[in-house]
Amino acid sequence: MSYARQLLDSYPRTFNRDAGVLASTIDALNECFQACTADADDDLGEQNLPEMVKCIRLCLDCADVCAATISVTSRQTEYDPTVTRPLLVACVATCKSCGDECERHAAMHEHCRVCEEACRRCEQACRELLAAMK
Amino acid sequence: MSYARQLLDSYPRTFNRDAGVLASTIDALNECFQACTADADDDLGEQNLPEMVKCIRLCLDCADVCAATISVTSRQTEYDPTVTRPLLVACVATCKSCGDECERHAAMHEHCRVCEEACRRCEQACRELLAAMK
Amino acid sequence: MSYARQLLDSYPRTFNRDAGVLASTIDALNECFQACTADADDDLGEQNLPEMVKCIRLCLDCADVCAATISVTSRQTEYDPTVTRPLLVACVATCKSCGDECERHAAMHEHCRVCEEACRRCEQACRELLAAMK
Amino acid sequence: MSYARQLLDSYPRTFNRDAGVLASTIDALNECFQACTADADDDLGEQNLPEMVKCIRLCLDCADVCAATISVTSRQTEYDPTVTRPLLVACVATCKSCGDECERHAAMHEHCRVCEEACRRCEQACRELLAAMK
Repeated sequence: MSYARQLLDSYPRTFNRDAGVLASTIDALNECFQACTADADDDLGEQNLPEMVKCIRLCLDCADVCAATISVTSRQTEYDPTVTRPLLVACVATCKSCGDECERHAAMHEHCRVCEEACRRCEQACRELLAAMK
Repeated sequence: MSYARQLLDSYPRTFNRDAGVLASTIDALNECFQACTADADDDLGEQNLPEMVKCIRLCLDCADVCAATISVTSRQTEYDPTVTRPLLVACVATCKSCGDECERHAAMHEHCRVCEEACRRCEQACRELLAAMK
Repeated sequence: MSYARQLLDSYPRTFNRDAGVLASTIDALNECFQACTADADDDLGEQNLPEMVKCIRLCLDCADVCAATISVTSRQTEYDPTVTRPLLVACVATCKSCGDECERHAAMHEHCRVCEEACRRCEQACRELLAAMK
Repeated sequence: MSYARQLLDSYPRTFNRDAGVLASTIDALNECFQACTADADDDLGEQNLPEMVKCIRLCLDCADVCAATISVTSRQTEYDPTVTRPLLVACVATCKSCGDECERHAAMHEHCRVCEEACRRCEQACRELLAAMK
């Protein structure tokens, strides 16, 4: 069981959201943060560096947005959906842009294929959390 | 002149946005990040701590969202409005929630009054950048 | 296999460190970042809030230091040990302080017990990476 | 007066460090965070991109370490020098490495000259805060 789930299960107050969906989203965000940080660096080490500039930029953006979203979704106390919802919307958009760019390089660079997978999973997880917030 | 403006003025590629509006927004985001980080800590040191819990939580959220928005708006290379726009929308919403909560404590705690001011300015700056992006 | 390991295995340049040790450390840092962010929030929701102030503060510090250390250790290109080494030293010290404080509350709060575990593992992983850096 | 100083001046508890030195350091850290984030992006937009790889990497590292150091030094409640001190040491080392690399490109790229200046000031400010902590 991930730390995200263990911490949610020991949260001291009443908790009226689905801990399974929330923990899965936090895990997917963590994996995407990690993958994008590493992929930006992998791109920096490539021979065809000038073609990787857009990928580097979007991976850095995606890592930054995922990091903020991890922190905000990990907080349950005084939960404020007017903060969480637009941030999840921004995270979905960023994962989509980054995943699309990684896909363009996936056949040539295995690290971009792996990063695309992490972005797609994270995008999907954030969409599910948004749907569950209704 | 702030570092944000100096760095924008020395950006090597063609740059078709308003450097003044952009630099002002980055400066306001930096000040809000700084104010929210410090205000969350000031709240933690207060006698009426149980009443400050919501303020702490929203200040932490606002610091995290501002930090991500600083990084994304500081990047001009391969600029992608589908990433920047929803993040600015999320930042406006977060600064609004945090500013509203700080306002509730502003008469009692000077640090909340200062933080409210930083949140309001940042909210306004992000709105102006969004308007300029059209 | 974690994303950290997959990305290291597809790194395009020659790589003269132990990918297993490095990937384990990045994974432990991610778990500690996640646990500390959530534990600070769990503490904020507790009845005995005034006694949890030091734990909140150290969990926030530990999350911030782990996040920076994840990013720096995830970068292999133009690796600079004069940057990585002192940051790992700082991360060891922060995980130690945070783990010690969480331990004080572990019998009363399950979330502090879980967070202590994440801090201890991360401290140990950073020590092992430092040792492997010779 | 910067927000860092205003927030320190309204801190609710007794405060036995020099608020002027501390606020100056937080301001210098903020400027360095901002400059390094922008300079990494400026480098990405340069014609001689392959020669800028080390500078990009160190600017990203320096931005990450400065961001963590801003947050930790902004917290006064339950201040723990065993956390703050090694992080400042790491920040000094990172600013030094990044400043040295920026200096190599300063004659060719104005943005690297500006970023070098921000790194040198931040390194100096962190050294002064360390000296004041004795």
